[in-house]
Amino acid sequence: VSKVPTRADAVQLDRLDRLAAYRARFSLPADVCYLDGNSLGALPRGTSARLHQVIEQQWGHDLIRSWNAHGWIDLPQRIGAALAPLVGASADEIIVCDSVSVNLFKLLSAALRRNDPRKVILTEASNFPTDVYVAQGLVRTGVSAAELRVVPRTELECNLDEHVAVLLLTHVDYQSAAAHDIRRLTDQAHRAGALVLWDLSHSVGAMPLSLADDQVDFAVGCGYKYLCGGPGAPAFAFVAQRHLPQLESALVGWMGHQQPFAFAIDYRPADGIDRLLCGTPPILSMMALEVGVQLIAEIGITAIREKSQALTEFFRQCVEPWLAESGLRWGSPLNPTQRGSHLSLHHPAAHAIVQALIAQRVIGDFRAPDLVRLGFAAPYVSFVDVWEAADRLREMMRTGSYDQPQYHVRAKVT
Amino acid sequence: VSKVPTRADAVQLDRLDRLAAYRARFSLPADVCYLDGNSLGALPRGTSARLHQVIEQQWGHDLIRSWNAHGWIDLPQRIGAALAPLVGASADEIIVCDSVSVNLFKLLSAALRRNDPRKVILTEASNFPTDVYVAQGLVRTGVSAAELRVVPRTELECNLDEHVAVLLLTHVDYQSAAAHDIRRLTDQAHRAGALVLWDLSHSVGAMPLSLADDQVDFAVGCGYKYLCGGPGAPAFAFVAQRHLPQLESALVGWMGHQQPFAFAIDYRPADGIDRLLCGTPPILSMMALEVGVQLIAEIGITAIREKSQALTEFFRQCVEPWLAESGLRWGSPLNPTQRGSHLSLHHPAAHAIVQALIAQRVIGDFRAPDLVRLGFAAPYVSFVDVWEAADRLREMMRTGSYDQPQYHVRAKVT
Repeated sequence: VSKVPTRADAVQLDRLDRLAAYRARFSLPADVCYLDGNSLGALPRGTSARLHQVIEQQWGHDLIRSWNAHGWIDLPQRIGAALAPLVGASADEIIVCDSVSVNLFKLLSAALRRNDPRKVILTEASNFPTDVYVAQGLVRTGVSAAELRVVPRTELECNLDEHVAVLLLTHVDYQSAAAHDIRRLTDQAHRAGALVLWDLSHSVGAMPLSLADDQVDFAVGCGYKYLCGGPGAPAFAFVAQRHLPQLESALVGWMGHQQPFAFAIDYRPADGIDRLLCGTPPILSMMALEVGVQLIAEIGITAIREKSQALTEFFRQCVEPWLAESGLRWGSPLNPTQRGSHLSLHHPAAHAIVQALIAQRVIGDFRAPDLVRLGFAAPYVSFVDVWEAADRLREMMRTGSYDQPQYHVRAKVT
Repeated sequence: VSKVPTRADAVQLDRLDRLAAYRARFSLPADVCYLDGNSLGALPRGTSARLHQVIEQQWGHDLIRSWNAHGWIDLPQRIGAALAPLVGASADEIIVCDSVSVNLFKLLSAALRRNDPRKVILTEASNFPTDVYVAQGLVRTGVSAAELRVVPRTELECNLDEHVAVLLLTHVDYQSAAAHDIRRLTDQAHRAGALVLWDLSHSVGAMPLSLADDQVDFAVGCGYKYLCGGPGAPAFAFVAQRHLPQLESALVGWMGHQQPFAFAIDYRPADGIDRLLCGTPPILSMMALEVGVQLIAEIGITAIREKSQALTEFFRQCVEPWLAESGLRWGSPLNPTQRGSHLSLHHPAAHAIVQALIAQRVIGDFRAPDLVRLGFAAPYVSFVDVWEAADRLREMMRTGSYDQPQYHVRAKVT
């Protein structure tokens, strides 16, 4: 239908791109097409200077006083407040701490308690594994006598029965990029008397969310993907205001106490979202995350989503003409409103293809068993990046040059 | 008995101090006596350059490939191995991840399961609050149907009955610095059929430990105090080899899976200590911790302990002659072998005294209700620091100059 785009088309699209200038705010190697921001977001240029200041001035010079003087103690709330508009929540409904897995555990245990005597955690078999593992650990060791029900994606709705305490889902699928309809599923869960816990790891920072409007109960999300918070950046937890006063997690600690520095022997949860804090947060990693969140918020989540859809559609146009004959098979929804900000392609030699692309300076990732996964983080990916990636992929598939022994070697993390 | 030391005595002691040269390996303000390394360890000089390299080169340039190329994926084990000799454990019994509170939760839940059908967690009322909070959260939400028994320190041994599943204690008390006898209490617990979980937060990096020789079952400890890992640095968890194959924590996640990147739907714990991993670790904070652990290991834990005892005894000699008349009252064991590396002094105006000391550039901290707490981290505290601190304290107590309105103002963190 549409003609195959040329490199000149890509150059022109970059010229018209209102976000193009933001690429200079990230530190990226000049000759790389970085299409893995869905796994590890690129480095904001401001991060290094910020960390230098935090380390030398705040830690090294001001020492212990920095907990007050530089607001270390308020970082979980401060970054939460910066994140709130990105997910459509109030500042006092979000807190930044721990990992996605740990926050999932806190909120799952709290949701079960909140919806007692219901016992069932309902989730889908294609959920990101750690979400299921957290539920399995909780169930196996008898927290709240919970039960876990894992069903195919298509059977979620018919499994929303009177036993389900909480529906645990990931918004954007880490493999296919298929996006659930948060509003519709939340509404259905509520009608069935269940609470919802959304994992936003593959959507936060890539697309606008409206947790308050959609009546979401609980959510978690990742700091190191589209939020550009750095490797293993802390995660966030969201709790709707209406649940906060009664919220009781199985995993509590001194930073969630109403008066941590009173050192009282009895745990009394803080009034609001602070009660989800547990131990002392890793300040250096928190500070790096703050730089990323501020930058993404500055760019604007609506503009990011708009460009991300344009990028993925442009990739589609570039590969569509030769995709079928290459042996690659589309693994993501064709409608851009129904997917997140990455695309997946099936191929039996996916692992070797990804390695060969990396050797050609196009960085995506492999996901077992057969996915080539490419992420299109709008703040720093250009249309020329996309065109180049498609072009090198086309040439590689045409010549079969990916089928070499060195591209089949598996590293520890793939 | 002994004469009051002079500043010249302190200078002479520094001259003889074999660790004196290590002070230059830390970045400390020149005019400050930093006696709060028990709360936040000082900044190693190497940290800033290391983090700059990790941020710019590893994250910014090498991007996602750094998980393999720069060993991010092995950091929890690598730092654990560096820590092992400091605590008398094997490299494969320690892992670095999460916070002390989160690791306490994992190990408490695992210990209860391991010692089923016993249900009681026994601890002391003066334990650090987060240790008790973690147990309370676990009990309240029904993990393993546990019960919590909190008793005075003097009644621990008579409470080691046939119901106790795990004895949960902190080695060095955060207030008094009194050190439990790990070997004796572990042995008593074992005779009573209980397991032990030691919190080493106030001892690791300050004194040698012998977890293997003492037959300790489980332990956790803090990275941001004597290990100089930076504010909120990740914590560690120790599990004796004999417990690892059956160890089952309530809190699990993908990084603890046998094959995290197989993305299997069923949780299968990794073979060894790796199973205690949960979410993705915060790499920037982990890297800073590694610098601190390496430096402490290089200095040598036996030498550190020796100097730390000399420092605290020197402080005692400096203050002993005038302590009684000042209204300050000794709050730590007099025998240096029975205490950790900090000292506490009781005084009704402790908060104001600490603030006034800080104004005079002697940084200690206040602990409610009435403690002036001073830490003597041997790697960077000099005998002159100690003499100066004692001298300024003496003058302050003599003149009552601490009793001014500005010293009574409470900050958020005190």
